[in-house]
Amino acid sequence: MLQNATIKSSVKRLPIYLDYLLDVMKNDSTIQYISSKKISDDLSLGEVQVRKDLSTICGNGKPKIGYNIETLANTIEQYLGCNHRKKAIIVGVGKLGSAIVDFDEFEKYGIEIIAGLDKKEITDISKIPVYIFNKENLQQLFKNNKIDIGIICVPKQVAQDVCDVLVTYGINIIWNFAPIVLKVPKKVLVQNENLAYSLSIVSSVINQKENK
Amino acid sequence: MLQNATIKSSVKRLPIYLDYLLDVMKNDSTIQYISSKKISDDLSLGEVQVRKDLSTICGNGKPKIGYNIETLANTIEQYLGCNHRKKAIIVGVGKLGSAIVDFDEFEKYGIEIIAGLDKKEITDISKIPVYIFNKENLQQLFKNNKIDIGIICVPKQVAQDVCDVLVTYGINIIWNFAPIVLKVPKKVLVQNENLAYSLSIVSSVINQKENK
Repeated sequence: MLQNATIKSSVKRLPIYLDYLLDVMKNDSTIQYISSKKISDDLSLGEVQVRKDLSTICGNGKPKIGYNIETLANTIEQYLGCNHRKKAIIVGVGKLGSAIVDFDEFEKYGIEIIAGLDKKEITDISKIPVYIFNKENLQQLFKNNKIDIGIICVPKQVAQDVCDVLVTYGINIIWNFAPIVLKVPKKVLVQNENLAYSLSIVSSVINQKENK
Repeated sequence: MLQNATIKSSVKRLPIYLDYLLDVMKNDSTIQYISSKKISDDLSLGEVQVRKDLSTICGNGKPKIGYNIETLANTIEQYLGCNHRKKAIIVGVGKLGSAIVDFDEFEKYGIEIIAGLDKKEITDISKIPVYIFNKENLQQLFKNNKIDIGIICVPKQVAQDVCDVLVTYGINIIWNFAPIVLKVPKKVLVQNENLAYSLSIVSSVINQKENK
């Protein structure tokens, strides 16, 4: 769920197409063209949807041949900003935070987590330096780096305070894992990763299935 | 993103309303009624949206008074299946898996994770027993328990295989954290928690902002 911005729902599926295209090319480097029919079959998606998603960013494929697979992959990568280097910091490096630091897809999207911040000293994360979350360390970090993204993995009780601090330092994009609705100025984008919402969906689906 | 089922988008916001209502009641136990205006102001949501969301499951509030707050909270809890006990197992108890096991909102939705399964022996999780993912242990677990939900936290390369096994044992609801589109029979619901998709949205937003 994204606050303060309307994202075309097709964007959500672009990473699926990208992963798929890269896989196809990896498995058979001689393939030059791919049809939306083949893509939709392999991904169990409707062909109309695939055509629509791809035409939004890449125009239409050649009739009866389809899309040049390399061009298609490159266009999606460009659209997703994969080639554009971006720096992120993560606040809250507990179990969830450190699982996120380990997540191996950041690089694909050009995102580098340059540091973690936590209220207490964390020594068992080797991938990034982790500093105490205080004014001095924040000033130092923001003085030496252009940081685009703030990842919030703190308990919900302190998430708004952390968010406010990050916004003060000029962060305009927040990836929020705390299960609350953050209040931010209009120019700030918040991508919420709310496990509780998913959980409620899982829970309500069972309920409604059994009530039928 | 939920496969194989259409969920009203209002359901996604119900946990926000529920958290908020429980908070309000906790902070002031004398409050009896609450208006959609107050809810929308406090949550920074549009009033029309709040009215619409709540009317879908609770009808309209009393004119000029609003909703009985306790009834409203109870109705949402009932809708979300919070009072309906459900059992889950989690496959893949690495960093992300163990962060999920620690997530403290399961109980609120009536979900109990009864066990974890992993390809290797895991000894540092104290909250649930963790077994080796093999036929013998699976048979034992499913023989002794009615398990509703399978949580998949394994690498994407093996996620489809794990999913197939869970479906064989009668699991109809999958909460999937592996960044792939799982192929499942129509009766099976998959709630995808795809961090890569969120990441791609975060990445593309930056890209499009800077291209403006």
